[in-house]
This record gives sequence, structure tokens and C-alpha cells, in this order.
Amino acid sequence: MTTKIDITLSETKKEKPESGQLEFGRVFTDHMFVMDYSPTKGWHDARITPYEPISLNPSSMVFHYGQTVFEGLKAYRTEDDKVLLFRPEKNMQRLNLSNERLCIPQIDGDFVIEALKQLVAIDKDWIPTAEGTSLYIRPFIIPTEYYLGVAPSKFYRFMIILSPVGSYYKEGIHPVKIFVENQYVRAVAGGTGKAKTGGNYASSLKAQEEASKKGYSQVLWLDGVEKKYIEEVGSMNIFFKINGEVVTPELNGSILEGVTRNSILKMLSHWGMVVSERKLSMEEVYQAYKQGLLEEAFGTGTAAVISPIGEFYYNDEKITINDGETGEISKKLYDTLTGIQKGTHEDIFNWVTEVK
Amino acid sequence: MTTKIDITLSETKKEKPESGQLEFGRVFTDHMFVMDYSPTKGWHDARITPYEPISLNPSSMVFHYGQTVFEGLKAYRTEDDKVLLFRPEKNMQRLNLSNERLCIPQIDGDFVIEALKQLVAIDKDWIPTAEGTSLYIRPFIIPTEYYLGVAPSKFYRFMIILSPVGSYYKEGIHPVKIFVENQYVRAVAGGTGKAKTGGNYASSLKAQEEASKKGYSQVLWLDGVEKKYIEEVGSMNIFFKINGEVVTPELNGSILEGVTRNSILKMLSHWGMVVSERKLSMEEVYQAYKQGLLEEAFGTGTAAVISPIGEFYYNDEKITINDGETGEISKKLYDTLTGIQKGTHEDIFNWVTEVK
Ligand SMILES: Cc1ncc(COP(=O)(O)O)c(C=O)c1O
Ligand SMILES: Cc1ncc(COP(=O)(O)O)c(C=O)c1O
Repeated sequence: MTTKIDITLSETKKEKPESGQLEFGRVFTDHMFVMDYSPTKGWHDARITPYEPISLNPSSMVFHYGQTVFEGLKAYRTEDDKVLLFRPEKNMQRLNLSNERLCIPQIDGDFVIEALKQLVAIDKDWIPTAEGTSLYIRPFIIPTEYYLGVAPSKFYRFMIILSPVGSYYKEGIHPVKIFVENQYVRAVAGGTGKAKTGGNYASSLKAQEEASKKGYSQVLWLDGVEKKYIEEVGSMNIFFKINGEVVTPELNGSILEGVTRNSILKMLSHWGMVVSERKLSMEEVYQAYKQGLLEEAFGTGTAAVISPIGEFYYNDEKITINDGETGEISKKLYDTLTGIQKGTHEDIFNWVTEVK
Repeated sequence: MTTKIDITLSETKKEKPESGQLEFGRVFTDHMFVMDYSPTKGWHDARITPYEPISLNPSSMVFHYGQTVFEGLKAYRTEDDKVLLFRPEKNMQRLNLSNERLCIPQIDGDFVIEALKQLVAIDKDWIPTAEGTSLYIRPFIIPTEYYLGVAPSKFYRFMIILSPVGSYYKEGIHPVKIFVENQYVRAVAGGTGKAKTGGNYASSLKAQEEASKKGYSQVLWLDGVEKKYIEEVGSMNIFFKINGEVVTPELNGSILEGVTRNSILKMLSHWGMVVSERKLSMEEVYQAYKQGLLEEAFGTGTAAVISPIGEFYYNDEKITINDGETGEISKKLYDTLTGIQKGTHEDIFNWVTEVK
């Protein structure tokens, strides 16, 4: 295992975008972290270099067989100019879980967090300051062997790139509209649903495109076997408040375990609320709605933190929740979680790590 | 749509491997075909260039969301030194079907076949001559937009690379052993199973790895819903001969429609055999075996053409077929099909196209 990180600083600095004009994932900082894997050396040549193109032969496995994994987390700048990371160790655990499923060698999570901190520190000036902005961190692994056989690659490249991102909610937190998908399937038990791998996202594009033509911003996936049980939204886990109980689908092997989901479960329990992780059918949600018991629904993920859901489109019917307004729990979770991330709320769970 | 193909020949020629030492997919010829897609220009800048690395920013979508498709076909050299392609229009149709599922713009199949022929003609000296060898042709499309949002890429690159490949059967056609997978799932109805996209192969690696540790060369996938019905093998479709009837699983949306599968169905019908495409459970195969009615089993695909199956491992039991020997139909199909491909057998179905 490599422990030394070689640093080459960029001679030129790119112009930084205005805080107010930030989009998601279009602009990248001056540096990146890279390390390589080979069967004899393991992970080696850890280095921070200027952000620059990757050059690979067209036969490189990454262009053919989708054996990729990735993560997504954020660095936040506090009012007193500290830089905070939120539970990065959870992302590293999940990355190794994805690695396991995709036959990619395990990484040393502690070492990668150290590398990530050094990288963020070097590009600290890129972290935007405006309300709701942050630095999105994208660790990813690609197979680099030059070979067209269908087999795990023998060589890999691990990289971390950084992108300053704007507020998810330009005009404050507000509810989204979700299409309940009844034709396409994202993942199935025994597949790769619990891993963060490219193929899961590639397979979701078509449904997403069709939903957005109908005016829905994301799709809600149902299970691949019976198309009955709720799984998750495009890039968020999902929660419902039904008659006082907060419910989220249990981890069944085909949904991703969100770091936000995990944090919210802890917060809700801490607040003494009734929470359950269990099988939940769309029909149950629909019946609750009919009986006036569907109180709130929200998605959870690193990008939006909490995304209140104002409407579902399900079997040719519109299900409106809380009159299309942000619910009480959604709001409280959003304020508390973003407060912890931004250092304005007490970090009672010890979730935050400072980048020095 | 682009119609002109720009040609830049390589100044140096790489050394060609010995015919007898060819592996699959490790060595590539001197040239490649490339064209790019942008929303304003469509597919443009079609060109044949020296085989060389691709340079992409680390934020290029191909490294993150697996929105890739590919094809696989072969060029064969005949005894009188002609170069033949086998049903390339079927590969182009399938590529467009994959494109459709993956939200990638359609290509003009006729134009690509024309480009492919020019490329193969330029690198004609690379086509090996020994028995069973050929030139493997790999068309593929990658998303090239620099963006981390989960959405279809706006820019793409289409490429064709060529690799001289050895005989699949070094010591003549012989049966393989297959593990019937009962835990992992490759694809499910509503997913991407019928498309030739990276994610399908990435998700298969783990099962493949575990099967090969147990001494089985490939896995047989069952349907993702009930894990009961037979789908296909790693990179082959599958056929059984049961009590005189030749059966292959029907196209149900989760299996790939092989060009070889399609050709074999046509040949068998032409020979007047009883053939059906239908739902087929592993239990039915097992019962046929118990009753002594399981006469043959074989996989079909571009790589091996016909791969007779000598043994299945199913629910802790070994199912031996035809005493582990190549069956009569398997042998006849193999000889006829490779004969048509190599120009030694009459091309009664008009499947072969010459590269001039
Ligand atoms: C499919 C999917 N589900 C859920 C999530 C939420 O996970 P997290 O809370 O760790 O961002 C994400 C986003 O990362 C995702 O891509
Ligand atoms: C999953 C899968 N099924 C079947 C096949 C067989 O298709 P073809 O006969 O066109 O090679 C292949 C190989 O290309 C494949 O990858």
C-alpha cells in the first residue's frame, strides 16, 4: 500500500466562476488526485497533479465493459473560513463495497481520506462561499487494462476531481414532482443496485428522459421483480411520513445505501420519532394518500440534502402531498443537516471532519 | 450525416504477431475509424487514422455513468485471399437498438459498414490466415461530454478498432462446462439486457469469477424475476436439443439477440428441423436430462461460433450431456457456419459480403 503522496502544483491557475453562476459538475479545480493499481505493486504512485486529460488506448477496458465505480461527497466552507467534510469514511466504505461487487481491488479508505484532504486544502480557494454552495468531490475508479476479453481488469486508475457547485435550491428549498416508473427497471436483487457503478446510471437515462418530457424531474424506481415495492429515486433515497411513522425502504441489495439516508435515520431516532426501514409498496403509499394519512415525502442525497416531494404521478393519477408544500420534518431535517455540514449547528453525532 | 471519410495513414507499421500465437483482443492493427457527434453537427469528422490513444478530461462522462454501447463481428480471409464479413448489417441494427435504449443518437448503418470495409481493406495484411483465425472488429460508442450530471451526454465518439484473433478452439471444437447461476442476476425485464452496453458485462464479472474458481468456464443466467427461466450464457445465446426439438429462449427483452442465434434458427429451419423460441425453465432441462431426453446443448456467439456444452452444474448436481462429447447438430452447425464465413460452403442465405 502506497503511503507517500507526490505533489506537482499547477503553474497556471484557472479563472474561478462567480459564486452565483455555479452549475453542477461543469467546472473543475486546478488539481486532481491520482493513483494506479497493478497486480504486482497494488495501489501505487499516489500523486496530486494539475487537472489534466487522461490518455488511454481505445482498447482500454473502461471504454467497453463498464467496470467503473464512483463516489460523491462535499466539502463545505464555514462562516469562520474552516473547511469541513461530512462523514467521508462512509463514502470510503461504500466505495469498497462497490469495488467488491465489481471485482475491483479494495482501497485503503484512511489513506484516500488523507489524500482527499490534501487535495481539498491545495484547492481551498475554489470552495465557494455563498449560501448553499460547496465543493463537490468525485472519487472514481476506472479499469485501464488494454484488453477486450470480458474479465476483471488487471490494472486500474483511481482519481479524485473537485467541482465547485451552486445551491441546489436557487430560491430556497422547494418540492419536486416525481414520476413513478412502471416500465423500466433500474436494478434487481442479485444485480448491482447497491453498488455505485456506471451501469446503474446508464440504465436509468431512458426512464429519466421520458419522465422529464412529461414534466417530472425524477423517477421513483420500483423493485425489478414485482414492480410493486418502492426502491429509490434517480440519485436519492426516499422517505415517507405516513400517519406519524417515518418509513424508508429497507436495504434489500438493490438500492444504494445513502450517507444522507443513514444520517437521517440517526437524527430521526435521536429526536424520538417513530422510524422504520421496511418493505413499502407503492399501493400502501397510495392507500395512505386516499385516507389522508400521507403527510410528507422527501428524497435524500448529497446533492440536494433533502428534496421535498410535492407530487407523484402514479398509474395515470396525480398524488399531491402536503398541498405541494415543504413538510415540517423535511424542513427540520434540511436545516439541521445543512447546519451540521456548514458548522452552524452542533455536531452531536461527530460527523464532521475538518480539512486543515 | 457525414459521408466523406478522411484518411491518414500510419507512417510506421507495427509488427504483426505470429498466427499461432494470437490471443483474443490484446493486439490491435495500425489504423482505426473515428467519428464524433455533437448536437449541432450530428455525426461528423469521419476519419481513418493511425491507431492511437484517446485523450479525455477526467470529467468525461464515459468515466462515470457507463453510457456506452459496442458491437463485435469478424472479417475472415478465404483460401483464395478474399476478405469476407458476416451479416454486418445485423450488427448495425443491433447497435442502433442499443443506442436507442442508452439515449445515444442513431448511426447510419450503411455508412458505418462502408467505413468498416475501408478500414479492414487498409489493414488487410493483419487478417491472419491459419485455420480458425480471423480479424475481430469492435465498433463502440462512448459519451465524451465534460459533465458530472446524470443525463445523456450531448457529445459522443464512435470508433472501430481491429484485432487479429486466434482460433477459439486450439485443439478443435470441444465442449465446455457451464455453471447455472442461482444468486447473481445479469439483467431483468425493463433493464438493459437486450442492449450491448458495458454495464451488462460489468455486472456479470463477479458471478463469472466465482464460477471459474469452481472450474466452470462460463455461467448460465436465469431470469431476474423468478430465477427459473433460462436466458443466456456470458457472451453467448444458448440452444438445447430435447427429444428431437431444438429450443432456444425467446427474445424477452432481457437477452441479447445474437447474430449467430438468428443465423442458426434460419439454418435449422432450412434443414427441416423442429425449432422453437420459447420460455424454457432450467427445471424442464433438468427433467429432460433425468428422462434421458436431453440430447445436446450449445452456446452460440461470434467468438466461438458454436460452443458445445458438455456439463452443467445446477443446484449441487452435475448434468452431463452427450457423455461430454460434441453433439451431432453442434458439429454440423459449426462446420456449416464457419464454412459460410470462410467461403468454403455455399452462401445460400446471402449472408456474406466481400471487402474489396
Ligand atoms: C442511486 C442513488 N441513491 C441514493 C443516493 C444518495 O446517496 P448519498 O446520500 O450518499 O448521497 C445517490 C447519490 O449519491 C444515488 O446515486
Ligand atoms: C450477452 C451476449 N449474448 C449473446 C451474444 C452472441 O451474439 P452474437 O451471436 O451476435 O455474437 C453475445 C456476444 O456478442 C453477448 O455478449
